[in-house]
Amino acid sequence: MPVNAMPRTPAYAALDASSPLAPFSIERREPGPREVLIDILYCGVCHSDIHQVRDEWGGAIFPMVPGHEIVGRVAAVGADVVRHRVGDAVGVGCFVDSCRRCAPCEAGDEHFCEAGMSGTYNSYERDADHRFDKSRPTYGGYSTAITVDEAYVLRIPDGMPLDRAAPLLCAGITTYSPLRHFGVKAGDEVAVVGLGGLGHMAVKLAAAMGARVTVLSSTEAKRGDAAGLGAHDFAATGDRKVFKERARQFDFIIDTVSAEHDYNAYLGLLKIDGTMVLLGIPDVPVPVAAGVLIMKRRRLAGSLIGGIRETQEMLDFCAAHDVAADIELIDIADVNTAYERMLKGDVRYRFVIDLASLRGGG
Amino acid sequence: MPVNAMPRTPAYAALDASSPLAPFSIERREPGPREVLIDILYCGVCHSDIHQVRDEWGGAIFPMVPGHEIVGRVAAVGADVVRHRVGDAVGVGCFVDSCRRCAPCEAGDEHFCEAGMSGTYNSYERDADHRFDKSRPTYGGYSTAITVDEAYVLRIPDGMPLDRAAPLLCAGITTYSPLRHFGVKAGDEVAVVGLGGLGHMAVKLAAAMGARVTVLSSTEAKRGDAAGLGAHDFAATGDRKVFKERARQFDFIIDTVSAEHDYNAYLGLLKIDGTMVLLGIPDVPVPVAAGVLIMKRRRLAGSLIGGIRETQEMLDFCAAHDVAADIELIDIADVNTAYERMLKGDVRYRFVIDLASLRGGG
Repeated sequence: MPVNAMPRTPAYAALDASSPLAPFSIERREPGPREVLIDILYCGVCHSDIHQVRDEWGGAIFPMVPGHEIVGRVAAVGADVVRHRVGDAVGVGCFVDSCRRCAPCEAGDEHFCEAGMSGTYNSYERDADHRFDKSRPTYGGYSTAITVDEAYVLRIPDGMPLDRAAPLLCAGITTYSPLRHFGVKAGDEVAVVGLGGLGHMAVKLAAAMGARVTVLSSTEAKRGDAAGLGAHDFAATGDRKVFKERARQFDFIIDTVSAEHDYNAYLGLLKIDGTMVLLGIPDVPVPVAAGVLIMKRRRLAGSLIGGIRETQEMLDFCAAHDVAADIELIDIADVNTAYERMLKGDVRYRFVIDLASLRGGG
Repeated sequence: MPVNAMPRTPAYAALDASSPLAPFSIERREPGPREVLIDILYCGVCHSDIHQVRDEWGGAIFPMVPGHEIVGRVAAVGADVVRHRVGDAVGVGCFVDSCRRCAPCEAGDEHFCEAGMSGTYNSYERDADHRFDKSRPTYGGYSTAITVDEAYVLRIPDGMPLDRAAPLLCAGITTYSPLRHFGVKAGDEVAVVGLGGLGHMAVKLAAAMGARVTVLSSTEAKRGDAAGLGAHDFAATGDRKVFKERARQFDFIIDTVSAEHDYNAYLGLLKIDGTMVLLGIPDVPVPVAAGVLIMKRRRLAGSLIGGIRETQEMLDFCAAHDVAADIELIDIADVNTAYERMLKGDVRYRFVIDLASLRGGG
């Protein structure tokens, strides 16, 4: 056995774009001087996992072990690690490394790394000079352990339920970051478009920030859920008169829908100087009417996860405000079924894999 | 003659959407207690004049006397006027009144008046309660005089050439406002898309603010002009490799083009957190790729002229920085020909009507 290798780690992988996920084993390295080895306890199932294992975004690296909403406990640390100790509850989100020298990396916006971040899976580890090492693909959290540089590992605050914390590492930061970046504050009128994994976190976070939150969903089906999550108001957009009645109501709209939909109708719901932030990417570009932006000085923006510092801030905010994801805990053997249910919108609001189911008697 | 009427005022008007502009006369009122009567010296010709006299935006009010880039001298003032004196050089821009009680009006954003501003032409005067008086259409600056509430009249700073000041009242504020509102500052990389009436002002203003300005024009034809206006760089976008070479170059893009064009290509030229502001309204909505916004947290926004306070600030800024429009002065009898030339892009960079040509021997 090579010096830095450990016993092979159990995982679930897709071997190609058309195969279901199946048991697999991967090699995880012993932690280097600044790395931590994490025993993974829980891993959230993100919709992007489905896109990537099916190579719907192109460039997929197989075998692929998905999972970037990882929570676990530190099992071992390298000699120079200062941020985390054995036994600590920690998290890993959408990336595990970056170039560390570009302006965004230096600003703490590692997710905008000019050289490209190392995704937690379907990407590559970095060499000693922090350049991509194409011989070492990254493998994600559908596995029992992972080794990560301490600088890319988050602290899970004391008292936070670890299974419900896992989705915060992607769905949480993806919604927290734009709410903060675009300045949502107490008293603002905020609309959340789409009540799925991202949407349900957006409702909880915006409400915790003191905003008045309205859920805009296509049907009445989730009206009760919206209230339960903390939304103050609800409208079913299948009834198009909503767009007239609520014209210019909102300071901020967070749009989580990736199916094609009418941006202009939603932009019309913004006040003067209002911002709509897109989180979902429809398959085709969506027509935007310049006049809808011009006549009220509105803004259409996008937002992408968040950096390490902001992700830690989000976790601490969630702990302080008792916010965590609403989840359905599953065994890893059920992950393919979970994917099918997600494609039908049948999950409230995030599947989380209990990795005990992969450890066997362990 | 009724108490408040004066001798009829010479003007040029369109009688319907298909007729050329022709000599006409209108009634201007004696100034009320808070109003000023202005002898119009110069009036710029805005592209929106053409759209409106041809009823291309719908709802046109005929007869129509266009013109909202007005500069003149105060000829008379009402008893309670405090801001302007007889003989002062003054300007009137795109609107002459608003409701005065909505939040935007109270914030000095009269152009976003919730009840609608009173456009300088093709709109209606207000009654004593500041509501639209549908019996009194507004008539614009293709005339020799206009009566306006003093609060909607701008001071033209001493020493500014009055003919070259006229286009500042629309083209100037339309480009100044987004540069200021979206925080353009010294050292920023700013691109100006399209070098017409708006674009040439955007170049001058952004350069005066200390930005490094690049003109993006479809062909090489205006490279020399761009430099003469103060641009630091130029690229002809007919050569599509520009969009690759200049990817992520700009902090801010001001897009003055109203013909349909590929927003996504231009958005790709923005840095992380960059903003592209639209000033032109293409005939059809333009597809926007959410991913182009999301991956770099970019913003697509719109901007509409500016409020009275900001318009005065712009005029004072222009005086301090020796900025004025590049114009071609014309007689009013040539306005129909000017329209035809504008439609071919044959103007550098704004036609301004010399109203002496309408006064006859006056």
